[in-house]
Amino acid sequence: MGKALMIGAGGVAGVVAHKCCQNSEVFEEICIASRTLSKCNALKEKLDGGKTKITTAQVDANHVPALIALIEKVNPDIVINVALPYQDLTIMDACLATKTDYVDTANYEPEDTAKFEYKWQWAYRDRFKEAGITALLGSGFDPGVTGVFSAYAQKHYFDEIHSIDILDANAGDHGYPFATNFNPEINIREVTANGSYFENGQFIETEPMAIKRVYDFPQIGPKDIYLLHHEEMESLAQNINGIKKIRFWMTFGQSYLTHLKVLENVGMTSIEPIEFEGKKIVPLQFLKAVLPDPASLGPRTKGKTNIGCIFQGVKDGKPRTYYVYNVCDHQECYKEVGSQAISYTTGVPAMIGAAMVMTGKWKRPGVYNIEEFDPDPFMDALNQFGLPWHEEFAPTLID
Amino acid sequence: MGKALMIGAGGVAGVVAHKCCQNSEVFEEICIASRTLSKCNALKEKLDGGKTKITTAQVDANHVPALIALIEKVNPDIVINVALPYQDLTIMDACLATKTDYVDTANYEPEDTAKFEYKWQWAYRDRFKEAGITALLGSGFDPGVTGVFSAYAQKHYFDEIHSIDILDANAGDHGYPFATNFNPEINIREVTANGSYFENGQFIETEPMAIKRVYDFPQIGPKDIYLLHHEEMESLAQNINGIKKIRFWMTFGQSYLTHLKVLENVGMTSIEPIEFEGKKIVPLQFLKAVLPDPASLGPRTKGKTNIGCIFQGVKDGKPRTYYVYNVCDHQECYKEVGSQAISYTTGVPAMIGAAMVMTGKWKRPGVYNIEEFDPDPFMDALNQFGLPWHEEFAPTLID
Repeated sequence: MGKALMIGAGGVAGVVAHKCCQNSEVFEEICIASRTLSKCNALKEKLDGGKTKITTAQVDANHVPALIALIEKVNPDIVINVALPYQDLTIMDACLATKTDYVDTANYEPEDTAKFEYKWQWAYRDRFKEAGITALLGSGFDPGVTGVFSAYAQKHYFDEIHSIDILDANAGDHGYPFATNFNPEINIREVTANGSYFENGQFIETEPMAIKRVYDFPQIGPKDIYLLHHEEMESLAQNINGIKKIRFWMTFGQSYLTHLKVLENVGMTSIEPIEFEGKKIVPLQFLKAVLPDPASLGPRTKGKTNIGCIFQGVKDGKPRTYYVYNVCDHQECYKEVGSQAISYTTGVPAMIGAAMVMTGKWKRPGVYNIEEFDPDPFMDALNQFGLPWHEEFAPTLID
Repeated sequence: MGKALMIGAGGVAGVVAHKCCQNSEVFEEICIASRTLSKCNALKEKLDGGKTKITTAQVDANHVPALIALIEKVNPDIVINVALPYQDLTIMDACLATKTDYVDTANYEPEDTAKFEYKWQWAYRDRFKEAGITALLGSGFDPGVTGVFSAYAQKHYFDEIHSIDILDANAGDHGYPFATNFNPEINIREVTANGSYFENGQFIETEPMAIKRVYDFPQIGPKDIYLLHHEEMESLAQNINGIKKIRFWMTFGQSYLTHLKVLENVGMTSIEPIEFEGKKIVPLQFLKAVLPDPASLGPRTKGKTNIGCIFQGVKDGKPRTYYVYNVCDHQECYKEVGSQAISYTTGVPAMIGAAMVMTGKWKRPGVYNIEEFDPDPFMDALNQFGLPWHEEFAPTLID
């Protein structure tokens, strides 16, 4: 069918590449490009030998002319952006210049503000439309599959959806008393940022981690969940008819939160250098050196993730509830693609989103969030490519 | 009256020096000696101008000939040892060689085992007796005042003491989420060491921190207390007639324990160097650099300590209970001597013990633990020199 250019060579990119190779009818060729060519080549080596042809390239994703030159050279049908969120706009600029379709998994965030908002990418709507190319925003799991779930609920089960609760549970256990999947500073920012939820046309801010519930997740069991801000609420609030309330919940274990808090208390998460034996050392950098290497967590993480949405609304004048979710097993993911479920649940939808555009199913000039397309082929692909979903029609609700 | 040679110039030594100057009738002269002469001189500068004459000297307390030479030069009536516990034996050797009385605040501990036991110092009994000199062991608060309290209870209130519960509460608050008074490694060792108590003629070991109670301390309120091993139980088991049970309890706050545990979990208390930016760094050393300087805690620590003993036994055939304790205020101590209560409660009894020997009240050739002497003059001196005690005759008991 065609050719994709993937920008990025981290954990998620590894999953995307694996999954493109499993879908070689669509992805006849992929080019893996990132700042570090050796990472791209390592990925190529792992995957070479199947039907999908793999090439690699070096590129600085902050640099629009370099991106344009690469796209012109590779001449892909689509660019799959799994680089850093800071780089969304430069990559979109290069796609515009070369009239190439675009898909990403997380919305643009200016490097200095840590404020996730769609406004910067939505500003490209007219230009993408005029160029006749498609930008599919947020094709990971959350955002991503949660939007597909919402469109699917809307299409098949509701005349009007009144509330959505997005539930993201990670019951993975890596066996360490404490370790982070990524930069502990980002973890800290997550739990110290204000929460927010959508209600009656506006977003309401809460104190950090102020709203807590316990939810008994299918296949996982009861977990503490905390209300957080999350980017897909912004687009769902606009795209789901009649929506009155949207909340996003994430699980955090008490022990994890305690470890983060203590490390913050003693100053080990500070990014202010201190004087130590005649050298300036950033405590957070030293902490990262003491903690287990995130890359070492994959092979030893056991347990499952469960991410899904609970909908409440009306159908044919009657109240209705609907819960749709995916359960993903860390060890099975690792066995299949060499990454645990956190990367897997983001990488699979990225490949599917790209396939939706490449096959023409979701081809529509402009910039779109995922819930704006027909969810049915995406839902089928989830079952086919490793993220099967389950439905409940009388789920426990969150008060 | 006479002259004392104090070896050591740390926090406790500062209190001892202040208190000797407040008792200039006994301490006409003191010589402050330590490895670091500048510390001795700083102390002298603070205290000069009163009736007590102060001199200073440099000495390596690990080196017996150097100690002998210093004692011969100073010619003191007594050596007050507030150096490190590792140095008890070298200082006792020098006292033997020069026929000088000796007092310390903590029993000898070989540097490599961290095992506190009296056997090494008790082995000097005959030699001190033959030399006609007195060694008073453990004249701090615990050990120290707790032994005096025991002798006092024995003398005035009981025919037979059956049980002693020693309770050591520190309700000081320095306003930091976490800080240690001293090396966090020693703190960790304390809470990870096995506990032990004396019962029916033998010591029974427990898992670390396995036995916990809550005790409502006078002037402090309810605190979590944990059963620990503590050195004075060894001598009290031998010196209190009819004793069946001795336990030692110390307060630890949940937050303090949580911080220690987390820091241990993530590897920040390890003494194994790690490679960091081309340099070998010991995590514990880096942690110490991040934590507040222990010396900075003194001026900001508020709250009180309460240390005492609860006795149960019989008098005139009837069961009897008795609780005697001291309450010490961190800020008042700091105002008076520039140290908070932890150093104060150790330093005052060290001065008093030395005065007991110098004035002849406790002069008896040999090596003795504090409870082997008449407690009455020591109890009077506690009231006089800043550690007044309180009695209760129907205290809450610990089950």
